[in-house]
Amino acid sequence: MNLKRIAAEKAVEFVEDGMKVGLGTGSTAYWAICKLGELVKEGLSIQAVATSLASEKLAQEHGVPLIPFAKLDGLDLTIDGADELDHQLRLIKGGGGALLREKIVAFHSKQLIIVADESKLVDTLGTFPLPVEIVSFAMEWTMDALRALHCKPMLRTDEEKLFVTDNGNYIADCHFEVISDAEELQRRLMGIPGIVDQGLFLGMASKAVIGHSSGHVNILER
Amino acid sequence: MNLKRIAAEKAVEFVEDGMKVGLGTGSTAYWAICKLGELVKEGLSIQAVATSLASEKLAQEHGVPLIPFAKLDGLDLTIDGADELDHQLRLIKGGGGALLREKIVAFHSKQLIIVADESKLVDTLGTFPLPVEIVSFAMEWTMDALRALHCKPMLRTDEEKLFVTDNGNYIADCHFEVISDAEELQRRLMGIPGIVDQGLFLGMASKAVIGHSSGHVNILER
Repeated sequence: MNLKRIAAEKAVEFVEDGMKVGLGTGSTAYWAICKLGELVKEGLSIQAVATSLASEKLAQEHGVPLIPFAKLDGLDLTIDGADELDHQLRLIKGGGGALLREKIVAFHSKQLIIVADESKLVDTLGTFPLPVEIVSFAMEWTMDALRALHCKPMLRTDEEKLFVTDNGNYIADCHFEVISDAEELQRRLMGIPGIVDQGLFLGMASKAVIGHSSGHVNILER
Repeated sequence: MNLKRIAAEKAVEFVEDGMKVGLGTGSTAYWAICKLGELVKEGLSIQAVATSLASEKLAQEHGVPLIPFAKLDGLDLTIDGADELDHQLRLIKGGGGALLREKIVAFHSKQLIIVADESKLVDTLGTFPLPVEIVSFAMEWTMDALRALHCKPMLRTDEEKLFVTDNGNYIADCHFEVISDAEELQRRLMGIPGIVDQGLFLGMASKAVIGHSSGHVNILER
């Protein structure tokens, strides 16, 4: 049973005719885009923007109409996955390295609907390492500043070279284990110059559609 | 009378033997670097890092010993200019486009000493357009978010092309006219994904050395 697919198809039910829709990236977004393609073939009219080249390509293949960012002044709804979420719909995202683009799209959406299987739902965030996007200039100092927040930051690599984001920056995956106060952590992270953005999405998700191994889907709302 | 030079040379008096020193960028930093070069020739022992290639080159020419960032774990003192400062030592910086590098260096310095002529000292910040460094992705939306903060943002150009920072981003020069609550504005700006950093330096400067047209120099402390 494909929990991600079940949940993604449920999430797509929130898409209404005429909406401007943000398409996330990753395995759950994959299923959402496939389902949107089906609905478009059946007559649903939407305009979509994608957070990655992969999602853009997938949308094209499935006939989901894409439009450049500059032609829209915002979105009605974005459907995306998460690497970890808690019951207050705080999220960690960015495992795929696209956290900044995903956060920009989410920020400009009236609604962000997260799709996940039950393994992503936790009582307290932090088991999943928090991705932090950093500029290369004086990066050793930025890593020191991250360590001072009581985590173990590891520079993400890609085949033995440093992983570079679409924006030309690096990712430090920060092992916190337990993030007891996500809002305070976000405030402290965003006070460190050299950090472009970080994977905590707080107060952004309006709904989460969770697929359970029982085949059941439930919806969390904020 | 060169007010910037008089003030910069006064600021250099705070540099002590053995210190790790950050070198700012711009016309006041120029005079500070020249003076440091003289003192080094007279026997002052320091290790310096530069916020720009221009300052790096100048330091080399004047015999100021430079060391890579990675070899130091922070700085004792940074001397830099400002585009505007108020009596509480809140600053606007980034007119030269190096705000992020300058802020990273300032953040990791125990002391930031600002050098300026009296024309930069204001009662309320905001006449100088606030430089905001933004990523290119969905930049139209980031510009909209800036407009929503009641300013007029203008993308900085360089010979009819968009100006690109050392970090590969763009600069929006935001015309506020009056910034009545700089702390609140900073909080709101840093909540907009797509903004890498912005030119408000709050709670960072420990001293400002101001050169007056009378030839007098005074020192503001926070």
